[in-house]
Amino acid sequence: MTTLDLMNKQWTLAARPIGSVKETDFRFLMTPVSTPRDGQILVRNALISVDPAMRSWMNEGKSYMEAVRIDDVMRAAGAGYVLHSKDSRFKVGDAVTGLVGVQEYTILEAKDAVKVDAASAPLGSYLNVLGLPGFTAYFGLLEIGQLKEGETVLVSGAAGAVGSAVGQIAKVKGCRVIGIAGGEEKCKYVTETLGFDAAVDYKSPDVRKLLSRACGNGVDVYFDNVGGTILDLALTRLRPRARIVVCGAVSQYNNMDRGEGPKNYMALLMYRARMEGFVIFDYEARYPEAQSQLREWLTAGKIRSHEDMVDGFMEFPRALGRMFEGANTGKMLVRLHDDAGAA
Amino acid sequence: MTTLDLMNKQWTLAARPIGSVKETDFRFLMTPVSTPRDGQILVRNALISVDPAMRSWMNEGKSYMEAVRIDDVMRAAGAGYVLHSKDSRFKVGDAVTGLVGVQEYTILEAKDAVKVDAASAPLGSYLNVLGLPGFTAYFGLLEIGQLKEGETVLVSGAAGAVGSAVGQIAKVKGCRVIGIAGGEEKCKYVTETLGFDAAVDYKSPDVRKLLSRACGNGVDVYFDNVGGTILDLALTRLRPRARIVVCGAVSQYNNMDRGEGPKNYMALLMYRARMEGFVIFDYEARYPEAQSQLREWLTAGKIRSHEDMVDGFMEFPRALGRMFEGANTGKMLVRLHDDAGAA
Repeated sequence: MTTLDLMNKQWTLAARPIGSVKETDFRFLMTPVSTPRDGQILVRNALISVDPAMRSWMNEGKSYMEAVRIDDVMRAAGAGYVLHSKDSRFKVGDAVTGLVGVQEYTILEAKDAVKVDAASAPLGSYLNVLGLPGFTAYFGLLEIGQLKEGETVLVSGAAGAVGSAVGQIAKVKGCRVIGIAGGEEKCKYVTETLGFDAAVDYKSPDVRKLLSRACGNGVDVYFDNVGGTILDLALTRLRPRARIVVCGAVSQYNNMDRGEGPKNYMALLMYRARMEGFVIFDYEARYPEAQSQLREWLTAGKIRSHEDMVDGFMEFPRALGRMFEGANTGKMLVRLHDDAGAA
Repeated sequence: MTTLDLMNKQWTLAARPIGSVKETDFRFLMTPVSTPRDGQILVRNALISVDPAMRSWMNEGKSYMEAVRIDDVMRAAGAGYVLHSKDSRFKVGDAVTGLVGVQEYTILEAKDAVKVDAASAPLGSYLNVLGLPGFTAYFGLLEIGQLKEGETVLVSGAAGAVGSAVGQIAKVKGCRVIGIAGGEEKCKYVTETLGFDAAVDYKSPDVRKLLSRACGNGVDVYFDNVGGTILDLALTRLRPRARIVVCGAVSQYNNMDRGEGPKNYMALLMYRARMEGFVIFDYEARYPEAQSQLREWLTAGKIRSHEDMVDGFMEFPRALGRMFEGANTGKMLVRLHDDAGAA
């Protein structure tokens, strides 16, 4: 077959969002698929990963990654199958993950693609517990959080991809785990399906009291995915020498100014505590270690990988919006084809 | 002699301050001096230490130390001479430091008093570089800040007791040091007298630009004594894997609400940086190590110990107020007697 006949569907960045992301911040395009050169592969994408970090990639200015340029294809992780290979490491039909962008077909440098074993786990897992969200939880909790057996862990965004992995890993490590999530249903999911010891609904008017009760004598590690008032509350519930892992601030991403800083940061002094940020890409050399450990736990049924699938390429902007509204439970993915695997 | 004939001058806490400390938050009292029991010593105080931490000790509520109770003598470190000893470790005339409180005479448990060598360094040094401010700088910079040779250090409150020790220790360690201080005179003191590489006047309308220029490629350690907008600015000037040492927040202590949190805290993520608090009392077992090292540097002329003396016991409330206005250069002390030693 010749790839020249294929047309590619793409969502490009049309405008830098002001406040919340709107559908009009993206533009839908159809462009011809080009042919991979030596050292490249052409991938037919099956799943596009919808991530909180996308919001910061859309902003201008310095961050841990370059901003997506206007009119460029929106940056996204994803998974698919090799359609055409000009590199000896890949053959047609191989399942791969990579930064494929929000498009149906992607030409990747072979060195930037990761071959995955679609037979041993559903493709979606490789964008979830066996992929960046899982690695983020793993290194954030164990390296930055320096989690020790028997400690108490609090995690926000607990029903999301990273948060649910954090809590499950902490349970495997013999810790007490409290999750913060939005709404009764998610709280139930977190305790009943994921096995957390307690869940606190941040939408409850009693959130302060509920959190205080759930945390008991305080937390040794707070894994923060949300920032804002929840971070401030968590700062009041620390145990001596607690570690706060700064992973994200999803509550702040849509703020037009920078939002509020943690008013209670002087708790760091009172509790001799530490607050530390990290970027998962720094751990790239150790992804295999994390994946192998996570796969072992997944296979043994000690952790779960739950994906929240939205069907259809055209749904991407709405899926992103839904994620920022907190509508998803588990890893949010856009499924491009029926053959992309079950949730 | 009998101590029963002595009258003690005391400043007690009359009210919890609202906003800035006022003279009426203290009450002056004359009370008879009692007699030490076995295991106690009676100290005639020569110097009372005036510290930023006093503001937080005056507030109700949980902190790293209990609040001073209303009508109790105001808590303070100080130095003096033993007048009467009921403990074999001390004899009359010994110079000691301890938490003596804001009063002329103090009965201390012998175990809570520290004998100092007033012959080898002026008494004031033991409340400054050879005392808690010096230890705070030493452990904060080397243990919490994990300072390495050749790094760049930024310190706020640079003309104060802790800040000036921080910068001088960093210079001894072969680092580039930038100090933040209020006003031209202090900035000059910091660079010309203390030998910092640069100073930034936080009162300048160009503070952002000046700081940016002075910090060049960014800072590896920011030692924060002030909090507030300066902390926020510093967060924008970090180098990868920077450490922020949370030592104090003097700009916030007089705030009636908790003030603002650091809006730019997500810089911790971008720079993979860490922000950590500490309380010097946790290092008590290692004070001798710090003192011995600091004394060596002081004797060799590598660091200085500069005290800002206010004369007269009655001046304590005003001295405290002046410190919060930033009027002092070096360690602020109240000198009770002419024989208390030179600055």
